[in-house]
Amino acid sequence: MESHILLVQCPDEPGLIYRITRILYEQGCNIIRNQEFVDAESAHFFMRTEFTGGHGNGDLIERLRTDLPAGAEIRIAPVQDRRLVVLVTKEPHCLGELLLLNEFRELSASVLAVIGNHETLGRLAERFDIPFHFISHEGLSRPDHEARIAEVAAAYEPDYLVLAKYMRVLGPDFLKQFRHRIINIHHSFLPAFVGAQPYRQAFERGVKIIGATAHFVTEVLDEGPIIAQSVIPVDHTYNPKRMAQAGRDIEKLVLARAVKLVCQDRVVLVGNRTVVFE
Amino acid sequence: MESHILLVQCPDEPGLIYRITRILYEQGCNIIRNQEFVDAESAHFFMRTEFTGGHGNGDLIERLRTDLPAGAEIRIAPVQDRRLVVLVTKEPHCLGELLLLNEFRELSASVLAVIGNHETLGRLAERFDIPFHFISHEGLSRPDHEARIAEVAAAYEPDYLVLAKYMRVLGPDFLKQFRHRIINIHHSFLPAFVGAQPYRQAFERGVKIIGATAHFVTEVLDEGPIIAQSVIPVDHTYNPKRMAQAGRDIEKLVLARAVKLVCQDRVVLVGNRTVVFE
Amino acid sequence: MESHILLVQCPDEPGLIYRITRILYEQGCNIIRNQEFVDAESAHFFMRTEFTGGHGNGDLIERLRTDLPAGAEIRIAPVQDRRLVVLVTKEPHCLGELLLLNEFRELSASVLAVIGNHETLGRLAERFDIPFHFISHEGLSRPDHEARIAEVAAAYEPDYLVLAKYMRVLGPDFLKQFRHRIINIHHSFLPAFVGAQPYRQAFERGVKIIGATAHFVTEVLDEGPIIAQSVIPVDHTYNPKRMAQAGRDIEKLVLARAVKLVCQDRVVLVGNRTVVFE
Amino acid sequence: MESHILLVQCPDEPGLIYRITRILYEQGCNIIRNQEFVDAESAHFFMRTEFTGGHGNGDLIERLRTDLPAGAEIRIAPVQDRRLVVLVTKEPHCLGELLLLNEFRELSASVLAVIGNHETLGRLAERFDIPFHFISHEGLSRPDHEARIAEVAAAYEPDYLVLAKYMRVLGPDFLKQFRHRIINIHHSFLPAFVGAQPYRQAFERGVKIIGATAHFVTEVLDEGPIIAQSVIPVDHTYNPKRMAQAGRDIEKLVLARAVKLVCQDRVVLVGNRTVVFE
Repeated sequence: MESHILLVQCPDEPGLIYRITRILYEQGCNIIRNQEFVDAESAHFFMRTEFTGGHGNGDLIERLRTDLPAGAEIRIAPVQDRRLVVLVTKEPHCLGELLLLNEFRELSASVLAVIGNHETLGRLAERFDIPFHFISHEGLSRPDHEARIAEVAAAYEPDYLVLAKYMRVLGPDFLKQFRHRIINIHHSFLPAFVGAQPYRQAFERGVKIIGATAHFVTEVLDEGPIIAQSVIPVDHTYNPKRMAQAGRDIEKLVLARAVKLVCQDRVVLVGNRTVVFE
Repeated sequence: MESHILLVQCPDEPGLIYRITRILYEQGCNIIRNQEFVDAESAHFFMRTEFTGGHGNGDLIERLRTDLPAGAEIRIAPVQDRRLVVLVTKEPHCLGELLLLNEFRELSASVLAVIGNHETLGRLAERFDIPFHFISHEGLSRPDHEARIAEVAAAYEPDYLVLAKYMRVLGPDFLKQFRHRIINIHHSFLPAFVGAQPYRQAFERGVKIIGATAHFVTEVLDEGPIIAQSVIPVDHTYNPKRMAQAGRDIEKLVLARAVKLVCQDRVVLVGNRTVVFE
Repeated sequence: MESHILLVQCPDEPGLIYRITRILYEQGCNIIRNQEFVDAESAHFFMRTEFTGGHGNGDLIERLRTDLPAGAEIRIAPVQDRRLVVLVTKEPHCLGELLLLNEFRELSASVLAVIGNHETLGRLAERFDIPFHFISHEGLSRPDHEARIAEVAAAYEPDYLVLAKYMRVLGPDFLKQFRHRIINIHHSFLPAFVGAQPYRQAFERGVKIIGATAHFVTEVLDEGPIIAQSVIPVDHTYNPKRMAQAGRDIEKLVLARAVKLVCQDRVVLVGNRTVVFE
Repeated sequence: MESHILLVQCPDEPGLIYRITRILYEQGCNIIRNQEFVDAESAHFFMRTEFTGGHGNGDLIERLRTDLPAGAEIRIAPVQDRRLVVLVTKEPHCLGELLLLNEFRELSASVLAVIGNHETLGRLAERFDIPFHFISHEGLSRPDHEARIAEVAAAYEPDYLVLAKYMRVLGPDFLKQFRHRIINIHHSFLPAFVGAQPYRQAFERGVKIIGATAHFVTEVLDEGPIIAQSVIPVDHTYNPKRMAQAGRDIEKLVLARAVKLVCQDRVVLVGNRTVVFE
C-alpha cells in the first residue's frame, strides 16, 4: 500500500498533535510512524507523519489548513524516489558511492545525470550508464559557466542537486534557482576549517579528530544548514595527504546519508538549523 | 510547573495517538514531549508523553483506561528523583561515578545507601556521607546472604537496586523480590563473553573492540534486557589488565546512563528487549 | 625510490631492535617507519620496518638470519599491490566498495577476478571490466563446487581471496589450499552472533550496538583471527531488515580496511590473534 | 624493577634508532616499549623508550649526547606519579573525575591541592581530604589575582597545573611561570567555537556533533597545542543547556586522559602540535 509523508510546521500551541491525528484518523489514514518536535527557542512545532491509506490528500491538506494555526506549512508527498543531478570535479569517492547506491536502489533517489567541470569522472558515470556532461569552466565567466550548468541540470527536472566534491564556489544566481535544493559535502567538521584546504588547516592546528559535514548550500560559503556530520580520530602520524585519504570514507558516507535523509523528507529547516527526523 | 510522564502500551490499532492526545487535551494537559513506537513483530503500541498541567491524574488514567484497548498498561508518574540502593564489591569506578552524579543532583535519582560484600568501598561512600552496609558473604549460605542484603536494602524502600560491579550472581528469591528493578553493568559487549573474566576472554579471542552493557537482571545470567551499551577500540597492545583499565570509563558511563534512563521513565520492557525513549 | 617492508618475529630477548636496525643501517637501508611489539603472553617480539635503499635484500635476509635467534621468521617484500580474487553471492555492497577502490587504485591490491555462486553480481563486475566467473553450486557436491572455484581462482595466482559476502561455508580442502590467505567479512561483532542470521539474532537479543568483523578464515566457522571490527549504534526502532541495511556501511568499510591492512603487510598472526601495525 | 622513560628528539638522519638502541643495549637497559616518529614536515625524529635496568642514567644521557646530532633534546625520567595542582571555578564534573582517579591511584599523578576562584567546590575537595584554597578574584586586579594563585600553587612544587573548568583567561606572567605545564579543557571541538559559550555557539550553528578538547595553554586563547579530543553526537532536540550536560562526560574523560598522557611522558611538543605516543 502506498505510503505518504506529512510534514507540518507551525507556531506551537496546545492540542496540535490531537488535532492533526484526529484529521488523519477521520480521513482513514493509518499512521505508521509519527515524530514531533517543539523548538523552544522559536516556539515552533514540527511533525513528520508517515501514513498509509486515506481518501485523497487534497481533502487532507484542506482540513489541516482549516484546523491549524495561521502560517502553518503543510506538505504531503508520496514515499518515492527523488530526482538528483550530481555535480563533480575530479575526486571519485563521493560520486562512486552515490552511483553504487543508485545502482542498487538504496538512495531513496535516482541519479539522472552527472555534470563535471573536468572530464575526469566521465568514465565512472559511463560505467553505470549515467549521462555525463562535461562543462568546462575554462574560457567562461563564472556566471556564464553556472548558467550553462543550471540549464543542463534543469533539463532533468531534479528535486535536488548534489555537490559530490564539486570544488567551485557557486554564485548567487545559481543558488537562487535551486534554493534549499543543493546538498554539499565539506571535508571538515564545520565550522572548523571553512574555506580551502581544510585538511592542511587541520594538520597545522594539530587536531586529533577530523570530520566531514553535509549541508545545504546558501549564499555564505560553508555556512548553510548542517544535515549530517561524522568524524574519525587521527594522530600525529597523519599528514594532510593521509588525512584526506582517511577522510574519504566519512565524506562519502555522510554525503550519502544526507541525501537519503533529505530524499525521505526527514529534514526540515529551522532558520539556519535543521530538524532531522531519523 | 510540575511535569508528569505518561507511559502507555497496548495492542496496536488505528487512532491510538489521536485518542490519547485528545484525552490529554481535554484534561487540560500540555504536552511537552511525545514519543511513539509500534513494534511490528508484536503489533504493540508504545507511547511516552511528558506533560504539564491537567486536573488530577486519577481522572486521566480512568479516561485512558476506558478509551484504550483491553490489556493496555497505563502509568503516570511525576518527574522526580527515584530512590536507589547500590550494591558493590571492591571496584570503585562505577560507585564513584554514581556518588559524584548523586552529589551534584545529575542522576535523576538519590543514592540512599551502599551495600558491599567487602569493606573496601566503605571509605568512598563515607566520603559522600552515604550510609555503607558491609554484609559479608563469608560463613553464610547464598540464600542467607541475599536475604540479609534484601532486608537492609528494602528498609530504604528503593525504586531500583544498582549493581555497580557487584561480583556475585543473585539467586531467584532475591530477583523475585526486586523483579525488573535491578540494573547491572556487565563488562563486555553482551552477548559476547558472558560469565566470568570477559576481558580475559576478549583478549584470547583477539577482538579489536571491547564494550560494556547495562541491563536489567533476570534469572538467566547475563541474559536480561539490555538498556545501554558502549564500546571502545583496542589493539594488540592491550592485555586483559589494560583492557580492564580502558573498560572502566565506558562501564561507569554506561551504567550511569542506564540509571538515568530508567529513572526518567524512558525504558519500557518488550519481552526481553527494551524500548528506550531518549 | 622503491620501498620495502621487513617483517620479523622471534622469541624476545634484549638487543633485538639494536641488532636489526644495525644491519639495516650497515646495508644502507633508510628506515621510514619502524614499529615494534612484544607479546608478553608468548614472550615473542614483532617488528615491521618500512625502508628504502639497501644493496639487495638477499644479503639483508641472510645477515638477519645469522644474527637473530633461532626460529626467527623474516620476510621482506616490496611495497606493491597484491593480487586478489573476490568471492561473492548476491549482496553487492562489499563487492561494489572493493571495485571502486580498485578502480581508483586505493586498495593496495588489484582485483583480478570475481567468482559468484549466483549470477547476480556479474553485471557489477562487468561494469568495471573485471572478469566474472559464475560457478553455481547447484548439482555439485560441496567438495566438487569448491574444487571448481579453487581451480578458477588459482589460475589468477592470487595472494589473497576475499569473501565479500560469500554466503557458503568453505570446506577443509579449500581452506588448506589458501591457508591464512582468505579474508572474510562477518556481519556481526564477533564473537557475538556466530553462524547464520546474525542481525536476526541481534534483534532478538535486543542489542543497542551492531557490528561487523573482518577475519581470516580458518577451519572453525567464525573463529578465525580478527583483523578489524567496527560498530554502529541501533535502537528499538531497528528490525532485522533495517539492522542489515545499517550494517552494510560498516561491513564494506571494515572489509576494505582489512584488505588494505593485509595487503600492506601490516597484519601478523600470533596464534589466533593478530598484531596490526597501523 | 624500576622503569624509566627516555624521550629523544633531534633532526632526522639515518641510523638514529640503531645508535640509540645500541647505547641502551650496551648500558644494560632492557627495552620494554619503543616508539618512533619522523615528522616529515620538519624532518625531525622523535623517540619514546620505556626501559628497565641500566647502570645509571647520567652515563646514558652523556653517551646519547655524544652520539646524537647537535641540538638533540634528551630526557630521562623514572616512571612515577607527577605532582598536580588543580584550578577550578564552579563546575564539579572535571574536578570530581580527577579526585576519584587520584583517590584510586589511576591518574599517574597526585593531586596535591585545589585552588578555586569561587568557594563552590571546596566541599568536594574536602571530601577527598585534598587542601582547597579559595582565592577570590574580587577586588583584585588580574595580575594580582594570578600572582596570588601562582604563589599558592608554586608552594606545592607542581609538575603541572590542570585547569578543570577554570573559567578565567590567564595572563602572560602566569603563563610564563608555568610554560608548557598548564593543561586546560575547552568545551568544544577546537578550533570550532573558540571563546565564550561554545555550546551556545554550537547550538546556533546547528552542529550534529559536539566535542571537547584538552590542550596546553599558551598566550593565544584556545590556540595551544592539542593533547586529546573527543566528540559525541547531538541532534535538534539539544538546546545549549542539554548540550552542556551531554558534554560533561566527554569533558571529564578527555581531560583525565590528557593528564594521564602528559604525566606518563607520552606527549611531546612539535611547534604548536603534539606527538602523542599512546
